[in-house]
Amino acid sequence: PRPVRAPRGNTLHCNGWHQEAALRMLCNNLDPETGEKPDELIVYGGTGKAARNWACFDALVLSLLNLENDETLLVQSGKPVGIVKTYPTAPRVLIANANLVPAWATWDYFHELEAKGLIMFGQMTAGSWIYIGTQGILQGTYETFAALAEKHFGGSLAGKITVTGGLGGMGGAQPLAITMNDGVAICVEVDRQRIQRRLDTRYLDVMVDDLNQAIAMARQAAAAKKPISIGLLGNCAEVLPEMVSMGFVPDVVTDQTSAHDELNGYVPAGIPYDEALSLRKKDPKRYIDMAMDSMAVHCRAILDMMQRGAVAFDYGNNLRGQALKRGVHNAFDFPGFVPAYIRPLFCEGEGPFRWAALSGDPQDIVVTDHALMEAFPEKTRMVRWLQMAEARVAHMGLPARICWLGYGERDKAGKIFNDLVRKGAVKAPLVIGRDHLDCGSVASPNRETEAMRDGSDAIADWPVLNALVNTASGASWVSFHHGGGVGIGYALHAGQVTVADGTDEGEVRVTTVLRNDPAMGIIRHADAGYNRAIEVAQERGVKIPMMPSQEKGRP
Amino acid sequence: PRPVRAPRGNTLHCNGWHQEAALRMLCNNLDPETGEKPDELIVYGGTGKAARNWACFDALVLSLLNLENDETLLVQSGKPVGIVKTYPTAPRVLIANANLVPAWATWDYFHELEAKGLIMFGQMTAGSWIYIGTQGILQGTYETFAALAEKHFGGSLAGKITVTGGLGGMGGAQPLAITMNDGVAICVEVDRQRIQRRLDTRYLDVMVDDLNQAIAMARQAAAAKKPISIGLLGNCAEVLPEMVSMGFVPDVVTDQTSAHDELNGYVPAGIPYDEALSLRKKDPKRYIDMAMDSMAVHCRAILDMMQRGAVAFDYGNNLRGQALKRGVHNAFDFPGFVPAYIRPLFCEGEGPFRWAALSGDPQDIVVTDHALMEAFPEKTRMVRWLQMAEARVAHMGLPARICWLGYGERDKAGKIFNDLVRKGAVKAPLVIGRDHLDCGSVASPNRETEAMRDGSDAIADWPVLNALVNTASGASWVSFHHGGGVGIGYALHAGQVTVADGTDEGEVRVTTVLRNDPAMGIIRHADAGYNRAIEVAQERGVKIPMMPSQEKGRP
Ligand SMILES: NC(=O)c1ccc[n+]([C@@H]2O[C@H](COP(=O)([O-])OP(=O)(O)OC[C@H]3O[C@@H](n4cnc5c(N)ncnc54)[C@H](O)[C@@H]3O)[C@@H](O)[C@H]2O)c1
Ligand SMILES: NC(=O)c1ccc[n+]([C@@H]2O[C@H](COP(=O)([O-])OP(=O)(O)OC[C@H]3O[C@@H](n4cnc5c(N)ncnc54)[C@H](O)[C@@H]3O)[C@@H](O)[C@H]2O)c1
Repeated sequence: PRPVRAPRGNTLHCNGWHQEAALRMLCNNLDPETGEKPDELIVYGGTGKAARNWACFDALVLSLLNLENDETLLVQSGKPVGIVKTYPTAPRVLIANANLVPAWATWDYFHELEAKGLIMFGQMTAGSWIYIGTQGILQGTYETFAALAEKHFGGSLAGKITVTGGLGGMGGAQPLAITMNDGVAICVEVDRQRIQRRLDTRYLDVMVDDLNQAIAMARQAAAAKKPISIGLLGNCAEVLPEMVSMGFVPDVVTDQTSAHDELNGYVPAGIPYDEALSLRKKDPKRYIDMAMDSMAVHCRAILDMMQRGAVAFDYGNNLRGQALKRGVHNAFDFPGFVPAYIRPLFCEGEGPFRWAALSGDPQDIVVTDHALMEAFPEKTRMVRWLQMAEARVAHMGLPARICWLGYGERDKAGKIFNDLVRKGAVKAPLVIGRDHLDCGSVASPNRETEAMRDGSDAIADWPVLNALVNTASGASWVSFHHGGGVGIGYALHAGQVTVADGTDEGEVRVTTVLRNDPAMGIIRHADAGYNRAIEVAQERGVKIPMMPSQEKGRP
Repeated sequence: PRPVRAPRGNTLHCNGWHQEAALRMLCNNLDPETGEKPDELIVYGGTGKAARNWACFDALVLSLLNLENDETLLVQSGKPVGIVKTYPTAPRVLIANANLVPAWATWDYFHELEAKGLIMFGQMTAGSWIYIGTQGILQGTYETFAALAEKHFGGSLAGKITVTGGLGGMGGAQPLAITMNDGVAICVEVDRQRIQRRLDTRYLDVMVDDLNQAIAMARQAAAAKKPISIGLLGNCAEVLPEMVSMGFVPDVVTDQTSAHDELNGYVPAGIPYDEALSLRKKDPKRYIDMAMDSMAVHCRAILDMMQRGAVAFDYGNNLRGQALKRGVHNAFDFPGFVPAYIRPLFCEGEGPFRWAALSGDPQDIVVTDHALMEAFPEKTRMVRWLQMAEARVAHMGLPARICWLGYGERDKAGKIFNDLVRKGAVKAPLVIGRDHLDCGSVASPNRETEAMRDGSDAIADWPVLNALVNTASGASWVSFHHGGGVGIGYALHAGQVTVADGTDEGEVRVTTVLRNDPAMGIIRHADAGYNRAIEVAQERGVKIPMMPSQEKGRP
């Protein structure tokens, strides 16, 4: 354990910018400003790690420092296992985290292997070295609540109260995303430090520890159509049922506790928080039992609220799956956020486009923000987001930004960024990557691929092809993970990160990767029969050998 | 359904030899000489297919015919789903077959998806277009029995009787592999046509349908130390228990019925063969139930034989796994063939190296055989194999050959082959590939990665990295499959095929792929702590950042 901080500036420590970027982003994931528990190498999402252990971290750093420009480093669950000679145009790093043969793909077995030091849980951007703090998820959350506001409340959350749980690495984005949409948020969180942290970074407005007070504040603000976010200290499995029995029904209810992990994530009710923490170590079996019970109670309260008129949706943490296991037969009565709000965007190849300034200078991000606003003035939601982000989002670690871009837009943005580096408009290369949660990169039947039109939810050929395509296209590094937000057994997904280094070669790489990566989203959704994806493929020239025909009345 | 045959000769139908090779090898997989049930697109191993359906086959052919030299075709479970622009040096085809999110990875769910037309079982070389008929497996089987003979019988099977089951696509290699090692084989097979087919291709010497006659013939031959292979018409689950109760104990017992697939593979006992076939369609549940029972009986008979002194081993068809499910608690008392005989080879990076002559001219294979014998005179077992193969193995489909080569040898052989093409010593390019069963390409806890020294049997990061490395190294096509010989849920594996087209670029591709692909085997086994792999890495310069130290007294 030691504090880690990414090098800044325009001086290379490695033999090239692709390795250098990997090195800086690995370190950035563990920056105390960015990661959740850097001393344990945990970046976010329960136990999502950047390296298997500190010895592996050191070996990764050394490997990257020495890696030649025609070599490729192989990383197996956070451990550097080999270096092979490839080509200058090939990826510099290839990463596989937490993958298990399906019949052995359970948390129990994973934990056994983890205890033996053989495997690591990489979440999505933790083990793939492109976590950029809570801003990363803030933008996705902003998009989701904006889409929800459009669908249910005429475009704004003003005067509407949202109840949610969890202010962790990803869930901590919710209060600000809601107030950015002019809404009122009550965020239930069991860990006082997490609440304090969100206050410190201005993602959250106030902390209270009394339910009645929280409700009163929320109602008052909603009546005045004033945005406010309230951090309520408590356990969801206690607070939400209490709300129900008090007759308090929010307008929107969702959750981002780490329900995907019943041992190291979700905190059971009926026991003080610090006792729960020690029970976790002392008697993990009993802990899991209590956590599973609590999740069932928690999920039932959400169902009750929905019954009474709240808009309920699952925010990708597998709470419904866990509750179903515990006998809540109707757990899946409320939809996942993807089919409800995100899939229409996926059919356009829209997805997370994030970048970081390797210079370390926040001004470089301002330059890129403005370049995008200029290039895509018609994308008003994106423009509004970029303006608000610049005004309200504090950088964590290396200055970074994210917005959602579609097929045809991402490669255009990549070229613009490479030109900015070439011209010296920014002080060092930019690194462009994304979450694994994208249109063509993930198979996750309880989240990204829930309720696919053709029933192909569980088919995982797609993320495999995505990883292979990004490798063939020359991304700087490519990753393939099992697990992630919904936990072991429930998802497979791929990611890519590519450096815009201002060279001609950099332009080819960045535009090729950023064209082919979202093309997988168009291909995947067209193959599943989504009319809009078929249309986009035809309009924008994505080659699909057996192009399906559109069917009337379908999305 | 129509007869398919690969084009021959030195004239391109596609825009380049990489596409052309993919096209020819796809067609070759369905050549009536090569595949098991070409009309149903089934190549081997139960339902291992080359394309999802005939419409997909036609679209694959068309896509390959038109594919540009900087494009990459994406194949999802036997269907061409997209074409993206990459680079001339990138793979021309990327393939993912039968992959499922782990929690959904069961045969039942797979069959549901298959019935909806969404997925295809690709086995290993069926869906990756590099099946070369039974010769492919003949060589591996030869190596296995040779290793067994060395370990247990002083180097020869002369005078020893082996009992095995299954004369299908892969199992059909057993009789010839055993007689090539001078042994006596009784091969129990329920389908008369399969036996006839092996007689026709000279893999099998005689067919009998009476157990007593088979045993008498076998005993006589063994006494005279004469090799002979006997195809015995019958069901293993009846014949083997009968052998036991007769007091007949062979020297060696194993099995290659398609036990991995309890519906479309294994044939239950206690019912005539043709009735079993119609039961399969009429009442699949009942069929499965009977098949599972039979497998338990079959496995118990093998255990009994072992108890009485036979050398028993599992030949990679998951019979033990199925029997365990049916209550045979000691099913895993006999070892898999990999830990018993193959792993020591894997630690040298040894594995299947196969090639086909795209000219269609068998003389091209003679030329390559001799080139290898000249280049590796010290590899006496290989030399002996190549001589016997040339004399006794009938080509099926495109002329092809296989031998096992280690790290450092495969890339050398690749260069030799590319030079032969360049010089015009062969009449058209050669295509070099392999089975997915290789040293660094598979995670399969009941077969290739059974009983790994560090307990990492089920970790699947390795095949993922292998697929990514082969893509980054510029293989002509790369595939990643779920299932294969041990069935859905039990294995993940990767394959590559690369064309030696006689150009400088071809030399770079072939040598890079054939160096990095087996390097994964050295890396994987060194990481697991095998002394020999660590040694090989050090001797032959495989870069391993956290090189483990050797421990005394371990393999
Ligand atoms: N878009 C998405 O797909 C998406 C986005 C965000 C989060 N998620 C999922 O949401 C979950 C949260 O992610 P994270 O990174 O914030 O995890 P995290 O572990 O960093 O934070 C979880 C938080 O929940 C709190 N918590 C746990 N149990 C609680 C309980 N019973 N009551 C109140 N608070 C409780 C914890 O104290 C912690 O602060 C994960 O499962 C993640 O995968 C998915
Ligand atoms: N090296 C390896 O890893 C390896 C090698 C060869 C085969 N295998 C495995 O072995 C199995 C066989 O492969 P294949 O390609 O030959 O399959 P296949 O389906 O082509 O042939 C199986 C044969 O077994 C026969 N059979 C089925 N049930 C029987 C029974 N009860 N008694 C007698 N005969 C029976 C069938 O009629 C058929 O001819 C597969 O599970 C395969 O994956 C593994």
